[in-house]
Amino acid sequence: MDSTQFLPAEIIKKKRNGFELSNEEIRFFIRSYTEGSIPDYQMSALLMAIFFKDCTESETLSLTEAMLRSGNVIDLNFIAEKKVDKHSTGGVGDKTSLILGPIVAAAGVPVPMISGRGLGHTGGTLDKLESIPGFNTQLSLEKFKESVQKNKICFIGQTKDICPADKKIYALRDVTATVESLPLICASIMSKKLAEGIDALVLDVKYGSGAFMKTPEMAEELAKKLMAISEGAGKKCTALLTNMDQPLGRFAGNSVEVEECLSILKNEGHQNPHVASMYNETRELSLWLSAHMIYLGEATKDLQSAYVLAEKMLTSGKAYEKFEELCVIHSGKLNQLPKPKHKKTIHAENDGFVKSFNTEALGLAGILLKAGRAKTSDVIEPTAGLEFHVKVGDQVRKGDVLYTIYGADPSLFSQAELKLKTSLVLSTEKTAPQKLILKTLGRGANR
Amino acid sequence: MDSTQFLPAEIIKKKRNGFELSNEEIRFFIRSYTEGSIPDYQMSALLMAIFFKDCTESETLSLTEAMLRSGNVIDLNFIAEKKVDKHSTGGVGDKTSLILGPIVAAAGVPVPMISGRGLGHTGGTLDKLESIPGFNTQLSLEKFKESVQKNKICFIGQTKDICPADKKIYALRDVTATVESLPLICASIMSKKLAEGIDALVLDVKYGSGAFMKTPEMAEELAKKLMAISEGAGKKCTALLTNMDQPLGRFAGNSVEVEECLSILKNEGHQNPHVASMYNETRELSLWLSAHMIYLGEATKDLQSAYVLAEKMLTSGKAYEKFEELCVIHSGKLNQLPKPKHKKTIHAENDGFVKSFNTEALGLAGILLKAGRAKTSDVIEPTAGLEFHVKVGDQVRKGDVLYTIYGADPSLFSQAELKLKTSLVLSTEKTAPQKLILKTLGRGANR
Repeated sequence: MDSTQFLPAEIIKKKRNGFELSNEEIRFFIRSYTEGSIPDYQMSALLMAIFFKDCTESETLSLTEAMLRSGNVIDLNFIAEKKVDKHSTGGVGDKTSLILGPIVAAAGVPVPMISGRGLGHTGGTLDKLESIPGFNTQLSLEKFKESVQKNKICFIGQTKDICPADKKIYALRDVTATVESLPLICASIMSKKLAEGIDALVLDVKYGSGAFMKTPEMAEELAKKLMAISEGAGKKCTALLTNMDQPLGRFAGNSVEVEECLSILKNEGHQNPHVASMYNETRELSLWLSAHMIYLGEATKDLQSAYVLAEKMLTSGKAYEKFEELCVIHSGKLNQLPKPKHKKTIHAENDGFVKSFNTEALGLAGILLKAGRAKTSDVIEPTAGLEFHVKVGDQVRKGDVLYTIYGADPSLFSQAELKLKTSLVLSTEKTAPQKLILKTLGRGANR
Repeated sequence: MDSTQFLPAEIIKKKRNGFELSNEEIRFFIRSYTEGSIPDYQMSALLMAIFFKDCTESETLSLTEAMLRSGNVIDLNFIAEKKVDKHSTGGVGDKTSLILGPIVAAAGVPVPMISGRGLGHTGGTLDKLESIPGFNTQLSLEKFKESVQKNKICFIGQTKDICPADKKIYALRDVTATVESLPLICASIMSKKLAEGIDALVLDVKYGSGAFMKTPEMAEELAKKLMAISEGAGKKCTALLTNMDQPLGRFAGNSVEVEECLSILKNEGHQNPHVASMYNETRELSLWLSAHMIYLGEATKDLQSAYVLAEKMLTSGKAYEKFEELCVIHSGKLNQLPKPKHKKTIHAENDGFVKSFNTEALGLAGILLKAGRAKTSDVIEPTAGLEFHVKVGDQVRKGDVLYTIYGADPSLFSQAELKLKTSLVLSTEKTAPQKLILKTLGRGANR
């Protein structure tokens, strides 16, 4: 169809009036916007119309593919094995990529990871890795491909050639109040993941007070939409709905999260059972996500064998070796991982049982400490962060340590402390501990 | 309130989420947009959010006043009498301004008219006046004020100093599918009218197949919103809901409409009863609108006396003299009004009664003839237009003349002819003639 047939304002009006846009109309709009012949003001009007009128499954797939095609798609077909990645919708203390990447790669399934930076209350994998001195996430595409083939793993950041439409649209959504739209969120996530040249994808869709999706129902809706795009694009997909009503594991921050991952990869749990109980969720979730990735990567015949294989990679130390190998690829000096210069403990003011966390507030406390970013231009302090000493359901006595604040600049601690004090609710009765993985959807659902 | 407190994206989000914006937020947004510190893409997102979430009466008034204050407001306080204008929401053959202006001015009520040009299927007063050779609508503001004082009448076009925000917003709405929003329509209309320095306003709100508002209910909703703004700004207001299910009067075009007005102003009706029956609606509506203007202008104590005075101005020839005076003010050579070089009659192909018109299609036929504009840059042929020979309810026999097409370029006629042929529906049973003025709202409602 000749694109001169399309009038941008007519396409906006069609969406505004609730009609389904054709694949051709969506491709024309995205292509013209990326090239600059459709201006920002028409795109923002379309985005707001989409916010109100939503998209059909077919429209969302067209949008994703148009954004995907706005740039280069990494071709990993020269690698024989099935390539598998994981995407998490983001949370506080969510560091599983650093554990599952090495496990899955050690199991022989290539993991090509293009990751993001933290923004708002959620952290970013790149920031965590870059807390390792020298760790370079700006590798060339050639080096990336070579490492995925040879080492089965590589982590890079977004490049300007991958989904330029997404970059341009995301910047616009951020300033036009059009971020919170499911089809736009789905197309943004999936266009970048599909550009990695993967064969399958495991989704960690989080719900709860620290997630974008506040309820399991909302998370399931998002998961289903993401899965539909993935399957529509011919990529196998499994989604786990996981708990973010409390932070994941023991630490939130950057170098402190790397420490937690190293403890897990080095199987240090038996040396300190209390510490192990704090990071056990991180370990369990990483193992399950790894198992799904290994299963979708067709390295085992069923999910159960995949879990056994994942656990073996972890306990045998092979995953830790893969992590060391990863640091070599990226020039990271793991033995120079910085330690926080200052810390402060926050104590319980009453007796009780931990009833709930305002997990988003914990993420915001992280921003106050410079462990995270309020805006993209903010600079992160790699050693800043939080340690969590209790979980929902735990009994607490007055004076017990609830949190430890870490960082390079203790003058930032008091503001964060205020946030921490209001982010934990105690009750007189014991609350049941929370289920970590609520539900599994898709290919590995019958576990 | 300090405007640095406001974040444009937060204001967009607030409206998007259905909350009422404060007067300060609206003023900040409009002022910043006019100055250029808020970009088009944020304004278009806000406009689309308003399209979906509507505005409260208070928000619409704030929006109108913010747009009004974006430029100069003409100060006519030095003129003792109440200044009154009329605004029509637009239709096909709507030429009442050219008749009521002179009537009301002749009755001693000053009429400061800032008019627009035709766009789409509806005509514009300035285009009609400019079909009179030499007629200059670009007078200085000083000359405008002087004429309103001395002659009680003057017609000018929008200037760059009046409501610059409206100009900028309207251009953006046109390309972002945000034209059809009642609060935006209301604020656009009323900001320009309030900038004229008037004391009262009569609204001619049209409904039907040739109007923006297709039903009387929609027209009444618009009328009530416009009246609320007018009264909210301290300007008395009356609204007439009038029929646009068929074109108004005998002609649609530019010089041909001026001819119709001259026939009415010169009281030529008695010379040709059929012609008079065709333009009678134009005369009647002009008289009623004049009466309401005279009444709101406080030149008479009641509406009935105002109608009597209006009719007297017309039949005595004083309104015609005022029209000649107006042409002198604007350097228009009335005796040189051009005549169409070519014409073609369209005949009935069957017997029957006129059931309905697709009046918008008649307006679009006018665009094909270059009597109107599809886009603002189109150039108008002043003599092009249509003559209507029948009205709803009239009996028609095969071969009777239904329309005459006029213009300078007969090669354009065949396309227009096709539109005309499908724009009139005949039926075997007689339809009742249509009521011209359905309802009067506001100050003169108890007529």
